[in-house]
Amino acid sequence: MNKEMAIRNVTPMDHARVIAVMPAWWGGRDLTASVQKLFFIHFANTSFIAEARDELVGFLIGFLSQAEEDVGYIHFAGVHPDYRKAGLGRVMFEKFFEVCKAHRRWVVKSCTSPVNKLSIAFHQHMGFAIEAGDGMVDGVPVSMNFLRANDPKVLFRKELK
Amino acid sequence: MNKEMAIRNVTPMDHARVIAVMPAWWGGRDLTASVQKLFFIHFANTSFIAEARDELVGFLIGFLSQAEEDVGYIHFAGVHPDYRKAGLGRVMFEKFFEVCKAHRRWVVKSCTSPVNKLSIAFHQHMGFAIEAGDGMVDGVPVSMNFLRANDPKVLFRKELK
Repeated sequence: MNKEMAIRNVTPMDHARVIAVMPAWWGGRDLTASVQKLFFIHFANTSFIAEARDELVGFLIGFLSQAEEDVGYIHFAGVHPDYRKAGLGRVMFEKFFEVCKAHRRWVVKSCTSPVNKLSIAFHQHMGFAIEAGDGMVDGVPVSMNFLRANDPKVLFRKELK
Repeated sequence: MNKEMAIRNVTPMDHARVIAVMPAWWGGRDLTASVQKLFFIHFANTSFIAEARDELVGFLIGFLSQAEEDVGYIHFAGVHPDYRKAGLGRVMFEKFFEVCKAHRRWVVKSCTSPVNKLSIAFHQHMGFAIEAGDGMVDGVPVSMNFLRANDPKVLFRKELK
């Protein structure tokens, strides 16, 4: 990771900046409806943005599950296309792992769409296992109805201990 | 509240049912994008649905703020139009207040759109104060950029002590 980058907790004011870059970072897919500002208010202490000089180059929105008391959940994370493969994703994930451990959360969960091959490869590289599902897309196990009916998701799980 | 009604914590399977009724309950406004299934997974212990016989008649999606350690936040709540004014909203809110108190959350926050007069009246009836904002719509103080730029919201706050 470049020395000029800095990672800090999000503030509510960062929401508009994140929303603005998302379609470009996701190759044109508009997933902004899932990144609600309330996360930037109420989960600011487990969510981060990365900046290089003053440009937004990465973000991670995560929270501590209330219902699963040993779980930290990564809701959305993204890195500026020009800054990929430089280790920024790893640094942000590791920052989230640290905050999970500090709260005695020993399992990190996440999910992605099977179309997002970059995300699948990144999670595997970071030591996440793919959970057994009830379907298969492009050779990858998926859960067909995890976030919506007939919208397959690849579910990831990593033990921190 | 009718004796045939029952209130219980949500499960992930309730998400599709809630999404299905929302446009009708909100007078045609489609706010379903804000009610993500992940709330039904990770905040199930602070979220409720009400059923009359097996019909869905109410829901409340709430969570304990991570960043504001004394705050419980009501993200979305709705009651079937045919079941309004019967006290169901009050019962669900009081159930949320109880779970807040059990977790030592002494402040409950919520927000609504100024167009939603029913919601404003209900919150006031339940003892919520309207927070000072940076604008005014129809004589009600609003925060202009709370969840999105130029999308005024009425912010509510209630102390439980």
